[in-house]
Amino acid sequence: MAQLKDIEIAQRSKLRPISEIAATAGLTADEVEPYGRYKAKIDLPLSGKRTAGKLILVTSINPTPAGEGKTTVTVGLGDGLRQIGKRAVLVLREPSLGPVMGMKGGATGGGYAQVAPMEDINLHFNGDFHALTTANNTLAALIDNHIQQGNELNIDPRRISLHRVLDINDRSLRNAVIGMGGPTSGTPREDHFDITVASELMAILCLATDLHDLKARINRMVVAENVDRQPVTVADLKVGGAIALLLKEAIKPNLVQTLEGTPAIIHGGPFANIAHGCNSVLATRTALQLGEYAVTEAGFGADLGAEKFLDIKVPVLGQSPAAIVLVATVRALKLHGGQALAELTTPDLTALKAGLANLGKHIESMQRYQVPVVVAVNAFSSDTPEEIKLVQDYCAQYDVETVEADEWAHGGAGTTDLAHAVVRAAQTPSTFTPLYEPTDDIVTKATAIVQTIYGGRRVVLEPHAKAQLRRFAKRGWDKLPVCMAKTQYSLSDQPKLLGAPTDFDIHIRAFEPRLGAGFMVALTGSILTMPGLPKHPAALDMDITDDGVISGIF
Amino acid sequence: MAQLKDIEIAQRSKLRPISEIAATAGLTADEVEPYGRYKAKIDLPLSGKRTAGKLILVTSINPTPAGEGKTTVTVGLGDGLRQIGKRAVLVLREPSLGPVMGMKGGATGGGYAQVAPMEDINLHFNGDFHALTTANNTLAALIDNHIQQGNELNIDPRRISLHRVLDINDRSLRNAVIGMGGPTSGTPREDHFDITVASELMAILCLATDLHDLKARINRMVVAENVDRQPVTVADLKVGGAIALLLKEAIKPNLVQTLEGTPAIIHGGPFANIAHGCNSVLATRTALQLGEYAVTEAGFGADLGAEKFLDIKVPVLGQSPAAIVLVATVRALKLHGGQALAELTTPDLTALKAGLANLGKHIESMQRYQVPVVVAVNAFSSDTPEEIKLVQDYCAQYDVETVEADEWAHGGAGTTDLAHAVVRAAQTPSTFTPLYEPTDDIVTKATAIVQTIYGGRRVVLEPHAKAQLRRFAKRGWDKLPVCMAKTQYSLSDQPKLLGAPTDFDIHIRAFEPRLGAGFMVALTGSILTMPGLPKHPAALDMDITDDGVISGIF
Repeated sequence: MAQLKDIEIAQRSKLRPISEIAATAGLTADEVEPYGRYKAKIDLPLSGKRTAGKLILVTSINPTPAGEGKTTVTVGLGDGLRQIGKRAVLVLREPSLGPVMGMKGGATGGGYAQVAPMEDINLHFNGDFHALTTANNTLAALIDNHIQQGNELNIDPRRISLHRVLDINDRSLRNAVIGMGGPTSGTPREDHFDITVASELMAILCLATDLHDLKARINRMVVAENVDRQPVTVADLKVGGAIALLLKEAIKPNLVQTLEGTPAIIHGGPFANIAHGCNSVLATRTALQLGEYAVTEAGFGADLGAEKFLDIKVPVLGQSPAAIVLVATVRALKLHGGQALAELTTPDLTALKAGLANLGKHIESMQRYQVPVVVAVNAFSSDTPEEIKLVQDYCAQYDVETVEADEWAHGGAGTTDLAHAVVRAAQTPSTFTPLYEPTDDIVTKATAIVQTIYGGRRVVLEPHAKAQLRRFAKRGWDKLPVCMAKTQYSLSDQPKLLGAPTDFDIHIRAFEPRLGAGFMVALTGSILTMPGLPKHPAALDMDITDDGVISGIF
Repeated sequence: MAQLKDIEIAQRSKLRPISEIAATAGLTADEVEPYGRYKAKIDLPLSGKRTAGKLILVTSINPTPAGEGKTTVTVGLGDGLRQIGKRAVLVLREPSLGPVMGMKGGATGGGYAQVAPMEDINLHFNGDFHALTTANNTLAALIDNHIQQGNELNIDPRRISLHRVLDINDRSLRNAVIGMGGPTSGTPREDHFDITVASELMAILCLATDLHDLKARINRMVVAENVDRQPVTVADLKVGGAIALLLKEAIKPNLVQTLEGTPAIIHGGPFANIAHGCNSVLATRTALQLGEYAVTEAGFGADLGAEKFLDIKVPVLGQSPAAIVLVATVRALKLHGGQALAELTTPDLTALKAGLANLGKHIESMQRYQVPVVVAVNAFSSDTPEEIKLVQDYCAQYDVETVEADEWAHGGAGTTDLAHAVVRAAQTPSTFTPLYEPTDDIVTKATAIVQTIYGGRRVVLEPHAKAQLRRFAKRGWDKLPVCMAKTQYSLSDQPKLLGAPTDFDIHIRAFEPRLGAGFMVALTGSILTMPGLPKHPAALDMDITDDGVISGIF
């Protein structure tokens, strides 16, 4: 029999009405607003006393084309915890539509470890990203209109830092000249569209603690400089209220379910390479109120997603993880160790041994925060017992438990061992230890990340970045947390440098202040803030029948 | 006591749960999907036998800055029909967010004749417009990506007719050069963003009869010409399935309520000056299945909205109106007759008499279709009995009943007279008579519209339009219905020519073929397909409190 596609497995599953899932999560009827039959939004704040759950963070080695299945493990772990009798609630990021139409496929897990309804979650979901796109572009139009209508704030059209955005992979919009066509159609200027998940508003939505904080953060956003090179904020433009209003529904976390009926809260989704890569603080707090265990993931590898989770999100969240699950696959480790992509089904202990250095570096990094670590080896049929044993023996030297996870084929039943290991780890007493102090300056913070998390030598500021820092220091922006924009494929800023490289420098070519989000983005390497579509976009294979049956999302 | 704002009246009203409204409309629980507590989508097709309702079309004189309140009368008429014991269902267009943030304010009626929840309907509603924006811009990205990846179809980058869109008033995007930044970021070319409501996909969504027809129409869309000047369609690009998939929820009509609990279906919203101006065929059909009376409106004045409703929508819908309600105000008629805007509260029978010519022309036009007409005079406190009598006497010469409507102050209780008049008119036997034959060519069709509906002399094709028609004839596109893009303020193509001008020509400067929608857009005058924001955008006055209380929408 042909192997079922993810969407086919999802379509054959019988979903429970969202009201039942809400009840499972301990939500009352007036705390949820249904969006169709299988999705809802959660009305915050929740009433009454709730659980003080433990936070479990799932992260991974540096991603490879071999696939690690971090989301799949995360979903499976939620189901596995339920199977061993723990009230687990998943809390995940929303997928970006651009990559779904491009090459990434959906971001809702796979096999028998999926959140559902996968087609809706992967397409428009409950409209949060569209609200962000609209809010961002309304703000952009209001800025250009301010200039058009007399420019009272003296905004310099050459120094508008707020880019327009779309939730689409559209390389043609990376660099554009807008405002042409004469005096009634604006001022000609350069603009650059980013993908919505790279926008500051997305980061703000994911870090805001309530509607009040959302509006305050929006008002603090610096969107341009005036002709005297002084920052211009949303508050200066007097449109913070309108922009917050456009996000009044988007700020509410979304509730769905896994194929096994585990409650899953999915909310917000900044990319982890160009943004901070975590679901919203409000969603995570809600999951912690509802579950004994709130199982969440951070984007890409531990160097990007987990570092930002721990250094940017945790201080706002006010709670650190009780345990961190590091996901690896034998295949991906062999690729890190030099085996060719086409050869990965062939056993190769030498390549595996070399590649384990990548896993080891991430274990060390996570242990640096004083959080217990569990390694999850996501099972593939090509794995051999010798390969698994090598991974286990390797990890034992870090005093870390290594557990196979087979959620793809078996759902929660395939992750009960992992669930038990996570429960054990989360019971270990630990004291979360931040990587840097809030009072450290930006270079000190970036250096801590580069040396401790990446294993690199030093941070090199290119001249433009140096000049920016001098200017930012005068404005008091020199103590912000750093959000590194770096390739996800390597610990370094060179995508092809796999394994655990050393003796490399990280080159910061520019900074982007995000006063509303409350961090400073440091751009390294050639990170694109607007992806392109591949030669054969996924969209070409998508279809919907006259009866509404969908195909091609996977 | 200060007069309440529309949003304050709405916020003081107690809405009924959407499940109750669905039951009032005769919908079963499995035919509706709730979107929050007060909105839903209707799952089509409806099961079982339903009412064969009568269609009531509300239109108006040419709009003026004095305000006519056509939507308010439409909503009030629905409530009024309910008050006299008729099962009425409203079926309206969705507001465009761009004008809401600009100067138009909401499009959900006013006073005690509103559809609710007005803030949600005016903002993101159930996401239909965002899905259209995304589908359109995904298609645009796929076209540019096709060129980038080898351009197998030989698309001429200078001749891409599909514009990107946003549901935002953003004049800076009217004219742009995109694709700059070197070979990895696309091919430099000119693009022009339109507002989403001007897109062909919006027209398609509003004319599609089911999912099958939607996909077929999308596949027929001509998006570019190749280097041999042959048309390139969505079918050629093989992405019709993906684009239809992105609209799978947007195609479902939305259910809300009036402040009096009358069911209101709100779905689709092409502008009437630059597009065809009607809500969706599916929504109207649904309303006809659910109500004894389906009360709908067309955009702007009868010359634009009603003409397109009757000549473009009715042939697809397969049902013509049983009666047409023509909305006028004494104030607006006086403005058409030459009184100054600031003077409109002063009685002026001379100006009123002169301005009535505009109303008379529209009565004649609508009677041309052999549909019974009722004139609704939307009441203002400044109206005098003499002025009302003058309107009534004037309309009597056309054998048309004239009824005052006071829905703004009294809701349905203020429109029971109008409701009775509409019921009487709808009982009058009539035979709908189209303006032109489907087999007529485009110039013949346009001439019929200009001479019969506008009262003009002839159609003048500018050289570019002439050349286009010659090319289109060779492609067999010369018999499409014509969708005139004309100013809404005048029967002519000169916005300042009020009243009922004669002896004017209509100049068509260009055509835009819309093979998917199935009509040919004829551009006259200087119609903008992307509006701008005013000096003081409405957004500046909008706000949301920490507790979620909204202000400034109206």
